[in-house]
Amino acid sequence: MRMSRLFLRTLRDDPAGADIASHRLLLRAGCIRQVASGMYAWLPVGQRVLAKVAQIVREEMDAAGAQEMTLPITQPLELWERSGRNDDYGPLMFRLEDRKQVKFCLSPTAEEVITTIVAGELKSYRDLPVNLYQINWKYRDELRPRFGLLRAREFLMKDAYSFHVDVDDLRRTYQDMFDAYSRVFTRCALTFRAVEGESGEIGGDINHEFMAMAEIGEDDIVWCQKCDYAANAEVARRKSEQHDGGSADAELEKVHTPGMPGIMAVAQHLGTPEGELLKCIAFHLDDGVGLALLPGDRELNEAALRKAVAPRTARLFEDDDFAAHPGLVKGYIGPDATGVALVIADPLVSAPHAWVTGANEKDHHVRNAALGRDFSVAEWADLVAVVPGDPCPSCGSPLSIDRGIEVGQVFQLGTKYAEAMGALYTDEDSEQHPMVMGCYGIGISRIVTAVVEEHHDELGIAWPSALAPYDVHLVAITGKGKATGEVSEAADKLYDELTAAGVSVLYDDRDASPGVKFADADLLGMPTRLTLGAKGVARGVVERRNRKTGADDELPLDGAAEALRG
Amino acid sequence: MRMSRLFLRTLRDDPAGADIASHRLLLRAGCIRQVASGMYAWLPVGQRVLAKVAQIVREEMDAAGAQEMTLPITQPLELWERSGRNDDYGPLMFRLEDRKQVKFCLSPTAEEVITTIVAGELKSYRDLPVNLYQINWKYRDELRPRFGLLRAREFLMKDAYSFHVDVDDLRRTYQDMFDAYSRVFTRCALTFRAVEGESGEIGGDINHEFMAMAEIGEDDIVWCQKCDYAANAEVARRKSEQHDGGSADAELEKVHTPGMPGIMAVAQHLGTPEGELLKCIAFHLDDGVGLALLPGDRELNEAALRKAVAPRTARLFEDDDFAAHPGLVKGYIGPDATGVALVIADPLVSAPHAWVTGANEKDHHVRNAALGRDFSVAEWADLVAVVPGDPCPSCGSPLSIDRGIEVGQVFQLGTKYAEAMGALYTDEDSEQHPMVMGCYGIGISRIVTAVVEEHHDELGIAWPSALAPYDVHLVAITGKGKATGEVSEAADKLYDELTAAGVSVLYDDRDASPGVKFADADLLGMPTRLTLGAKGVARGVVERRNRKTGADDELPLDGAAEALRG
Repeated sequence: MRMSRLFLRTLRDDPAGADIASHRLLLRAGCIRQVASGMYAWLPVGQRVLAKVAQIVREEMDAAGAQEMTLPITQPLELWERSGRNDDYGPLMFRLEDRKQVKFCLSPTAEEVITTIVAGELKSYRDLPVNLYQINWKYRDELRPRFGLLRAREFLMKDAYSFHVDVDDLRRTYQDMFDAYSRVFTRCALTFRAVEGESGEIGGDINHEFMAMAEIGEDDIVWCQKCDYAANAEVARRKSEQHDGGSADAELEKVHTPGMPGIMAVAQHLGTPEGELLKCIAFHLDDGVGLALLPGDRELNEAALRKAVAPRTARLFEDDDFAAHPGLVKGYIGPDATGVALVIADPLVSAPHAWVTGANEKDHHVRNAALGRDFSVAEWADLVAVVPGDPCPSCGSPLSIDRGIEVGQVFQLGTKYAEAMGALYTDEDSEQHPMVMGCYGIGISRIVTAVVEEHHDELGIAWPSALAPYDVHLVAITGKGKATGEVSEAADKLYDELTAAGVSVLYDDRDASPGVKFADADLLGMPTRLTLGAKGVARGVVERRNRKTGADDELPLDGAAEALRG
Repeated sequence: MRMSRLFLRTLRDDPAGADIASHRLLLRAGCIRQVASGMYAWLPVGQRVLAKVAQIVREEMDAAGAQEMTLPITQPLELWERSGRNDDYGPLMFRLEDRKQVKFCLSPTAEEVITTIVAGELKSYRDLPVNLYQINWKYRDELRPRFGLLRAREFLMKDAYSFHVDVDDLRRTYQDMFDAYSRVFTRCALTFRAVEGESGEIGGDINHEFMAMAEIGEDDIVWCQKCDYAANAEVARRKSEQHDGGSADAELEKVHTPGMPGIMAVAQHLGTPEGELLKCIAFHLDDGVGLALLPGDRELNEAALRKAVAPRTARLFEDDDFAAHPGLVKGYIGPDATGVALVIADPLVSAPHAWVTGANEKDHHVRNAALGRDFSVAEWADLVAVVPGDPCPSCGSPLSIDRGIEVGQVFQLGTKYAEAMGALYTDEDSEQHPMVMGCYGIGISRIVTAVVEEHHDELGIAWPSALAPYDVHLVAITGKGKATGEVSEAADKLYDELTAAGVSVLYDDRDASPGVKFADADLLGMPTRLTLGAKGVARGVVERRNRKTGADDELPLDGAAEALRG
């Protein structure tokens, strides 16, 4: 493609409102343009990258035995009401009505539609398993669209759905998909981890998130450097030991802590390490009140608390809630407060400690509170947020925490959707059962963001070969003198030879300065830059630069196309 | 692909509500399933056809110098208000609001969005021309979705938009697109005609529709068997000659025609050919009333009338309208009726005639009405609908009329959108002008319907090679006896060899009767069927049948894969 004809305008300066490198660079390199908040047009250069990612995903899905199809983007809302997910999604879903007031949504995923279709087509255990996927635009009406493609409202996703006679069969396909995903992200040159994940609106039991490691990632990933353990921080665990609380030697002693409702102030005032304070966090538990206990130097993992009390629901107290519960003194709650239906504690609280904790009285704490003597715990559960250095739940080695971008997720769904949509099969004994399902998503447009986050420098993007819009960026330095025609001619010839050799070339044939051309080449980020000027033509060589490493060398013009055929 | 694993259920019987062959067969062959009225899921077999059509379109667009991109499906309604097309589309467009009450539509086309983007990127005559396209889902909220994919509410379309400095440059790209379209439809094995078309909601001056010839088509196509002339019936013309009305010999004579407001009854009653009657059709013309005159044996082409009186607007009288206009007697209007602002007539009315026409009095007509003596005409225009045998406007030969499916349309748009969205360029003298635009659509999913309409028989679909889901349908007739394993083994081997040779194969490895397998092969319609049974294995041959011609022959098993590599 000749740049003089390419629909591309690069931007010299960082666009306003683009906070992360990938968003800035994708705009500057003319890959995308915003049309509305969180909705983007893919311009020709970006389109080529998007298509390459989609093709890699398609190839790996096909190789894993999944079958491609396309489902409507506009889906009858009635199906979503049947599964209960219309409520689950709430304002996150775009909804509309047709001219006859029939309600539709714009698909965020497609479990309901595909399950309904499969229910209509397949009836017997002999028809299963089947694994179906599509690559299509998806929609989420995000409250705060941001970071360009990372949190967009319209995005390209591969979604697959598998149907099975039982969980064992599901697990085989789940593993196949897991492996296929690993191949996809490897081919896309992403540094990634598969981690235990949260299921979100999809539901389901076991699931893994594929995280591209990136400082700007929206998720914290806990991982062990020694073993395979890795999990989203929301569901990450630490190795914990249950103790019996130890002996209670010193007597309980009330101390005056005026105007010190916070852990840090009390610790400083009393000269006690924060880890010796006992944090008592009040929460609503269905109709009652609960207290969550943890050491003062740890934070509560709210997702862990919710999971620990399920199927009961937990919601943390807000400031207004204390007025209705006089037994709970905000900032001075003790583990033995009155009117509490459930005391739940992290196992860290079971280790021998002489705790400093609230006295259930304004401006007062107590020292030397002892588990078993001064307070008791009804339930034990992992409640603390994991921090770096915590012991790995699998091997006990220190855990690390990094940030990542979720680029894929695989779920073992069980029978939730099959039951809601009536997807039943008949077994060998003519008995009917709901199909067991898995679902598997890859964020195609999100991968583009993650790739740019990982593969860029201060000059621009450095596309990995598999995703580069073009293999080669050919820069003709035509100058102003009599050599102009000669260089143009040689560059045209090289362009034709490369194209004929199957090398895709972006050919900068514009009437622009070398500085402008080199800056654009660095910004656009093709893996190989070829530069041809008057001296090179005279010597019969073309300069080659590796965009990633910056390494330069020369190739004889004669045979350059063959050499680059790769 | 082994049929035992393919997500496919064929239907023995015609599905209810499918009125045309393509709809019936696409459902029966498991290509598509309806999810909501006018919205379809593409199952794996159909998906493969859709993808092949899309790829042909992509290749021809790229070869013609168009650049692929993707525009959002959800588009800000504000852009459509700016162009005035929000009103033009009315209830045909799906509209929705996001959580912040910002209004969007689901794209029926994308002139507004692409013009806005181009306006932001290109500023100079040096940047033009540029031709941009996308292949993406489009939406029309049809009042009566029907005929399956033919009038669907969600459909896959290729839409291209070109931008130019002037009309001459536009015409070059228009011709390139015209030629590319011809190649696309030829590769899709469609019998088609490019005809002069109506512009519909898009607007614009010159445009052509590409019509796939089909009895079930929704459009009438007028075409000349001698020359190149072809047009949609709505805009078709006939060669017409202007006369002076001839002499008026016989005297005007009033006749009693009680209860005969129709042409046929009067003609029979008076023994006069229908062509000797003068039809006077009343219409509203802005604030006044007009009369359209044509011979009694011809029908009015309403689109021609609208065009003839433009920019004034015409709307035909309905029954209720006559009460307010006592000078116009329903069924008995004469060309000299009172209270008429404009009399417009087809040139056929100018030929010498002694007309029978209304007497402007209930139950009465007149004989011998003569142009010039008894009535006059203010404007002449082609108003009659063309009928077969009418003279071609180009060469005078008799015209034919056939039905067609619109599969593509190309428009010369002019500056309508560039002016509305501010897409201006600066010329060599630093003066600003609006860009001149063209737009070009191809109905990808519609092509699938048109192809099945043309390529099917009573047994099922007969896909043309370029679009067939698989090249070969391999049927293994395993029987029941001891030869079963031998046939399966030979068929497996042939399947592997064909696949290795790059031939795509649908392999019927199911445990089903030969009758079921052959019926499915005929229904699904791969170009070549290979049948392998015990006798064939013993003789070392496989039977080959051409789906289209029904021709049978045999191939040696040894080398069959090579022979079919094609």
